[in-house]
Amino acid sequence: MPRLGVILAGCGVYDGSEIHEAVVTLLAIDRQKAEAVITAPDMLLDEIDHRTGALTGATRSVLAEAARIARGVITPLEEVRAADLDAVVFPGGYGAAKNLSNLAHKGSEADILPEIRSLILAMHAAGKPIGAMCIAPALIALAFKDSGIHPTITIGTDPTTAATLETLGAVHATASAHDIVIDIPNRIVTTPAYMVATSIAEAAAGIERLVKEIIRMI
Amino acid sequence: MPRLGVILAGCGVYDGSEIHEAVVTLLAIDRQKAEAVITAPDMLLDEIDHRTGALTGATRSVLAEAARIARGVITPLEEVRAADLDAVVFPGGYGAAKNLSNLAHKGSEADILPEIRSLILAMHAAGKPIGAMCIAPALIALAFKDSGIHPTITIGTDPTTAATLETLGAVHATASAHDIVIDIPNRIVTTPAYMVATSIAEAAAGIERLVKEIIRMI
Repeated sequence: MPRLGVILAGCGVYDGSEIHEAVVTLLAIDRQKAEAVITAPDMLLDEIDHRTGALTGATRSVLAEAARIARGVITPLEEVRAADLDAVVFPGGYGAAKNLSNLAHKGSEADILPEIRSLILAMHAAGKPIGAMCIAPALIALAFKDSGIHPTITIGTDPTTAATLETLGAVHATASAHDIVIDIPNRIVTTPAYMVATSIAEAAAGIERLVKEIIRMI
Repeated sequence: MPRLGVILAGCGVYDGSEIHEAVVTLLAIDRQKAEAVITAPDMLLDEIDHRTGALTGATRSVLAEAARIARGVITPLEEVRAADLDAVVFPGGYGAAKNLSNLAHKGSEADILPEIRSLILAMHAAGKPIGAMCIAPALIALAFKDSGIHPTITIGTDPTTAATLETLGAVHATASAHDIVIDIPNRIVTTPAYMVATSIAEAAAGIERLVKEIIRMI
């Protein structure tokens, strides 16, 4: 059974992983008779009240919050090795741009968590497919920055974000919510999800295609 | 477009709403071209660390946590009226048994939040369908306690929980994860979801059938 790493960044669109994207990813993986290995880094996030979008001033554990989506079955990122996985998938949400990287604050000057960069580069070096949705394709652009590799990815249609990713060295392809963008040589599949989608069914259409394509590539 | 109330109890299987069940419900509603009106009571829950299952000693707002699943678009339960809805659906998770009621602690002596009881009884009186999954069918049993109405419901196969529901006056039907139990005269549809399911795809099979049946009944 193929094993797909699903890398989370918390639990909630504004301070962690986008919940719908994460759950639809898990459902698609299970329906394709594959196994999800859910993981997240052991770090803190800045809590946002999802009723208002405002910071509360409190912090939460990214790993403990991600464990909510995982129903308790979660592996700390530091224990996850590329050699044990057949593919990785990154759901979106601001956590990808605030926890796994600081893209939301620093744009093209952003840093990415070293463990996330290492995992992406190790999967790529092993010829294993990498999927990302919503804003999470930015992690792929950040991981390959200054590498000489120029991954083709999509975050949908937002010209400012697309320009940031191109500054990092990626090639941006415009796409709608039901589209997937496949970078064949680099074995990377991306879809805009809630960067473009206006409903969960729209987001799910692209996410299900992404998961199927990733598993087909394994 | 039919409007279905989706009543949440937090965000996480051990102290709130089961996230997979809630998201699969929202996806099924959207795919059926219906509208989800997501709501939760404005009260506190006892936080559980989902890595360990242990109480942390802290509390969280049920409404703020549920807003994570709702991507911020949530209506406080006190503002929701049965007259504005065509149906209601209750996802499961311990929040149904610890926040919306105290079934987890008091069994057949449990109380239900008065606002939840009122909503269930008002929907029933108006002939509007009511859906519930996982442990949430217990809310239906609690709402109809001492009413003279004996709803037929399922929580799967657990004999102790089933006996508790029968003590409350409900009729329990054993069911597997892909089954739905339909109480035609009372317009109630239930499915065991994660009370029985061992994977998200198994849970989703019953939840999708439940949502389709509820919408067909409207």
